[in-house]
Amino acid sequence: MQPHVIAGIKLGSASAGIRQTERDDLVVVEMAPGTTTAVVLTRNAFQAAPVKITRLHLSESVRYLVINSGNANAGTGEQGLQNALQVCQSLAQHTNTAANQVLPFSTGVIGEQLPVELIEQAIPQALENLAEDGWSQAANAIMTTDTRPKTASTSFAVGEKEFNVTGISKGSGMIHPNMATMLAFVATDVSVPQAILQTCLNEVIPETFNAITVDGDTSTNDACVLMASGKAGEADIQLGNPAYYALLNAVQTVCLSLAEQIVRDAEGATKFIRIQIDNAQSQAEAALVGKTIAGSPLVKTAFFASDPNWGRILAAIGRAPIENLDVKRISLWLNDVSLLFNGNPAETYCEEDGRQAMSGTDITVRVSLDRGSASATTLSCDLSYDYVRINAEYRT
Amino acid sequence: MQPHVIAGIKLGSASAGIRQTERDDLVVVEMAPGTTTAVVLTRNAFQAAPVKITRLHLSESVRYLVINSGNANAGTGEQGLQNALQVCQSLAQHTNTAANQVLPFSTGVIGEQLPVELIEQAIPQALENLAEDGWSQAANAIMTTDTRPKTASTSFAVGEKEFNVTGISKGSGMIHPNMATMLAFVATDVSVPQAILQTCLNEVIPETFNAITVDGDTSTNDACVLMASGKAGEADIQLGNPAYYALLNAVQTVCLSLAEQIVRDAEGATKFIRIQIDNAQSQAEAALVGKTIAGSPLVKTAFFASDPNWGRILAAIGRAPIENLDVKRISLWLNDVSLLFNGNPAETYCEEDGRQAMSGTDITVRVSLDRGSASATTLSCDLSYDYVRINAEYRT
Repeated sequence: MQPHVIAGIKLGSASAGIRQTERDDLVVVEMAPGTTTAVVLTRNAFQAAPVKITRLHLSESVRYLVINSGNANAGTGEQGLQNALQVCQSLAQHTNTAANQVLPFSTGVIGEQLPVELIEQAIPQALENLAEDGWSQAANAIMTTDTRPKTASTSFAVGEKEFNVTGISKGSGMIHPNMATMLAFVATDVSVPQAILQTCLNEVIPETFNAITVDGDTSTNDACVLMASGKAGEADIQLGNPAYYALLNAVQTVCLSLAEQIVRDAEGATKFIRIQIDNAQSQAEAALVGKTIAGSPLVKTAFFASDPNWGRILAAIGRAPIENLDVKRISLWLNDVSLLFNGNPAETYCEEDGRQAMSGTDITVRVSLDRGSASATTLSCDLSYDYVRINAEYRT
Repeated sequence: MQPHVIAGIKLGSASAGIRQTERDDLVVVEMAPGTTTAVVLTRNAFQAAPVKITRLHLSESVRYLVINSGNANAGTGEQGLQNALQVCQSLAQHTNTAANQVLPFSTGVIGEQLPVELIEQAIPQALENLAEDGWSQAANAIMTTDTRPKTASTSFAVGEKEFNVTGISKGSGMIHPNMATMLAFVATDVSVPQAILQTCLNEVIPETFNAITVDGDTSTNDACVLMASGKAGEADIQLGNPAYYALLNAVQTVCLSLAEQIVRDAEGATKFIRIQIDNAQSQAEAALVGKTIAGSPLVKTAFFASDPNWGRILAAIGRAPIENLDVKRISLWLNDVSLLFNGNPAETYCEEDGRQAMSGTDITVRVSLDRGSASATTLSCDLSYDYVRINAEYRT
């Protein structure tokens, strides 16, 4: 499916040669005047230089994003901050704007200085390529170890007006988002005041990008941007009114699709695992249990082997950082197969049923804690030889 | 080196056929009357049946341990508790003791019922083999995916008297001990009151078994036992006196050696990584940062590849669950090579030096947080193809 065009948002890609291949690795996004922008950034204490500059530059007058892959500009000290600023300045000069109207984003190797000259040389080409149908090319240009570009679109109606939401994202390793995942850019053509746009993004993140984990490693460069160009008109969006929920629902649809695409393209992954924790005391508690299961290398390798070794799931639940867990209330299912019921092995269980459930590529683990009414779903994947290969060979 | 004999402690091994091979998989440990026993058990909320029974039976009159490999008797509900009790009863009948003088321990597959009959049939053979020089054979019998048996011995003097400490342990996966690791049995021939023995064990655990992690998965069956037979005589051990510290030091030496052996024999490991966190606000904070680095699959795969990809170490530090980390104070070394100094890349660093440091099989990562005076060392290993293979094939 072609991503929907978002009137007022243009994307241009180019090859700056950061990765020493011919592939595009630079993207410029141009927003029409009046576009509002909301951003969610990593909570990793080591924040990359572009993350710090983006936080500094975020305002109501943002006009450009500049995104490079191949180098994360993280762990690069003061020089890294200067380099990120210089990229903003260079783009501002070409476009007759101010440097603080540009938000920079980087993804790739950590700990090497950004090749600023290469990026400056490629900016004119990226600007020349600016187009409203540039989403797919941009999704390709921001990839690192991703094997597939990730795009998602939907539309929603308010009264008789129709609006669109489109987004792209990248990421397949160092995925354990804390506030946002490694680079996602989402835009809508409806007009939304900045404060409402930020609230909308904050509401969507926990159940989309923050609900996924590949390897438990939170990136230094995580960033999710939501832009509203307003080019398709006003919809009188106010916090809590029906138009707001229509927007929220559409943004959630796009973000959830992008988040799922990241997990399905996770480094070395062969299986997509949906972990649903029910009857918890709070959503946060349910998410903690889900993330603990998802993060267990023993659970992950059992999934890789299609082995219904549910004892490993149980061991992970047991070490989840929640208080006073009563294991006699816990029940566990693999798809529809009951494994554990109120802390005892299910009497109906036979190994063949477990093996059958494990044989698919999409598997649901469901746990009932029987101590409340909150739920959370975590999306994750298995751990394969290829995860080790990809990450052992990453810089060679 | 042959493990030192501990007068008053006999070990007998036998093959019960739990693992369907000829290898020994059952061990009985007999303690002379008057032996005191201290135990530390897993904090995993899902505690295996033998862990629960051990907690119930622990008293000043413990006379026997019965240990099986090949089946963890965890996640086995009420039937599992009955099975663990029946093993104790069976051993008690053969030895004319009471079932509550027996502590049971199990290690192996989770979620399958213990084959009690096989164990009962093999108990007489294990009793027949009881001998004070049975440590090495027992170290072999308790192995699961371990490739090498783990034993350690030392001696210490109090005045003119000489005493001995010997221990065995097993474990190479599901290793992230929380209070103790998967099965370690340590004994001394000095006389120690039970309460002092327990304090000694509690003091030793944090810097030995609790300082190691292989894969972040805390076992359901973790247990460490310290026995004091008193057969080499009294040493007037009292909390805080010189004799106590001589004992503490000897037990620490044996436990640290066993813990290191577990990490060196970790599933698929090719490198031994010592992670030293200095200048933290507390020992707990230092250990949290060390465990976060040690638990990162991205750090682990970089070590496997001998790739000085220190950005991954930095990303792990940044997501460690500690408050108000000031990254501008952080410095990082790989062996003696300075990588990061006060948050900036070290000016003296060159990739060749990093690659050199990474090329060995024993590597030290040192981090200074520059916010206090506490330190902690975590012992860990890399993540290789073989970790995935071993755990994907575990039950097949």
